[in-house]
Amino acid sequence: MRAIVFDKTLIYAKDYPTPMPGDGEALIKVVMAGICATDLEIIKGYMGFKGVLGHEFCGMVVEAADSALTGRRVAGEINIGCGRCKLCASGARNHCPERSVLGILNKDGVFADYVTMPVENLHPLPGSITDEEAVFIEPLAAAFEIGEQVELEGKDVCVLGDGRLGLLCAQAIALSDCNLTVIGRHAEKLAILERRGIRAKIGASGMGRIFDVVVDCTGSASGFAEALALARPRGTVVLKTTVAERTDMNLNQLVIDEITVTGSRCGPFKSAIVALAGRRVDVLPLVSRIFSMEDGIAALGHAGKKGVMKVLVRVG
Amino acid sequence: MRAIVFDKTLIYAKDYPTPMPGDGEALIKVVMAGICATDLEIIKGYMGFKGVLGHEFCGMVVEAADSALTGRRVAGEINIGCGRCKLCASGARNHCPERSVLGILNKDGVFADYVTMPVENLHPLPGSITDEEAVFIEPLAAAFEIGEQVELEGKDVCVLGDGRLGLLCAQAIALSDCNLTVIGRHAEKLAILERRGIRAKIGASGMGRIFDVVVDCTGSASGFAEALALARPRGTVVLKTTVAERTDMNLNQLVIDEITVTGSRCGPFKSAIVALAGRRVDVLPLVSRIFSMEDGIAALGHAGKKGVMKVLVRVG
Repeated sequence: MRAIVFDKTLIYAKDYPTPMPGDGEALIKVVMAGICATDLEIIKGYMGFKGVLGHEFCGMVVEAADSALTGRRVAGEINIGCGRCKLCASGARNHCPERSVLGILNKDGVFADYVTMPVENLHPLPGSITDEEAVFIEPLAAAFEIGEQVELEGKDVCVLGDGRLGLLCAQAIALSDCNLTVIGRHAEKLAILERRGIRAKIGASGMGRIFDVVVDCTGSASGFAEALALARPRGTVVLKTTVAERTDMNLNQLVIDEITVTGSRCGPFKSAIVALAGRRVDVLPLVSRIFSMEDGIAALGHAGKKGVMKVLVRVG
Repeated sequence: MRAIVFDKTLIYAKDYPTPMPGDGEALIKVVMAGICATDLEIIKGYMGFKGVLGHEFCGMVVEAADSALTGRRVAGEINIGCGRCKLCASGARNHCPERSVLGILNKDGVFADYVTMPVENLHPLPGSITDEEAVFIEPLAAAFEIGEQVELEGKDVCVLGDGRLGLLCAQAIALSDCNLTVIGRHAEKLAILERRGIRAKIGASGMGRIFDVVVDCTGSASGFAEALALARPRGTVVLKTTVAERTDMNLNQLVIDEITVTGSRCGPFKSAIVALAGRRVDVLPLVSRIFSMEDGIAALGHAGKKGVMKVLVRVG
């Protein structure tokens, strides 16, 4: 099968072995895949991953341990737990220490004609969600994770950053009963939110420490310090992106102002699917360009360019 | 009056002006004072403080806006809010942006014969608490703050560090219904806890990431990384001490493992007073030495020595 493989360098393979579904797994024909910042980090060496890249996708189930899934269009949760440890047993398989992660850790990803996944990771999709939208379910679920971790209701909330994740987090948070302000750098990106009635602002100058919750979606080394500068004493900063290097740390402010910092990663697919199906979020304005599978390597190059939002790859 | 004053250098003054109580304030004759790590940091230049040092104390009220306090023995909360801002109105005067802090920020402290304090900051002391014990109310209150911020009940909790604050935090946390382990470096200090039935261990080797809550009381730059290495995914790390420099930060682990980090500072005096009065904690084994007021500068020097626990200064 065709596959975009990373092994120290990027390779477009035409004859990569088609995976065989194991016990409890499904074989899925990939239809559409999305490029995430994590993919771009992996290409730079993050996680030391070797194999087929990609973890945002939708596809058609070709065969499955659960025959009710066969022929269904699905999205898939990316963490595959061992199913035996304490964390898996407690429902936190996303945190299983033995987990593999689709296209990120010990598991071939979705920039390929076929992928295998445990059936318990799969979510059938309603027809009202397009393939292009379905690719956003994984990052949108991560956006909904914030509300699972931090009380937002009645709070003054700030989303810092207007990149892909910032715009998804803003839309997810806007569905809660809070007072949301998004602070970004790009008028055209913030306009996507303003059209949906979300308050947005270029730069934080003169704002002071007024927010109960600040979500750092900057993806930059300086984002944490910027977020701290906006959080009130006893406020919460949610870290939503990993950043290779952070140098200017001031943990003393956490102590003096009793700030809470919460890391936030993968989230509930169901919330994302319900929001998309109900047209309560709009992800299509985030699509910068759709590439064909043959142009997958060019797609990854394009996704890394300044100002580019979401890049999709039409696989099937 | 006599006072130990810091103004770039330490001065033992014999004729420092006796403070005059303002509206709503009490004049207090200091009886006993304690030396805190923060005092030692201030001498190194932290906070840029100038004035009378010291913030842990008990004393006798000489005169007060509230006459019922006159003649009472008291301890005092160290943060003095403006009383007008949103944070003061919400009961968080400890976080008032205009606050002064006894012996730390814009307010003369307690290494002096007299100090003034707002009457609302004062807590009358029951006779069952000795002067020596009363000096521990402020740091012990800070230890009880942890339970105000983080759910401890039923949790696997680790206190990391066996210095003054570590031993207080351990004793405060041991009163909650949790499974506590204290990890330190000094058998003689950990023995203080073991005598009270608290599980203690030298070093964390081989423990892995098993704790729901880890309280960093190390006071060292490496403490945060050590605490992270003991916290389970989705666990909480409580930062209890400010450290001048922290270099080896790994905030990515916070995101990947969805760790929450909570800064923790001053706490509820009432909890500390109730625990001391009820003999539910024992702070006296932490007293290394009591100096006279005249030897106050020597006391500060002694407090900074390796292995020394709490140093007290008998003022009145």
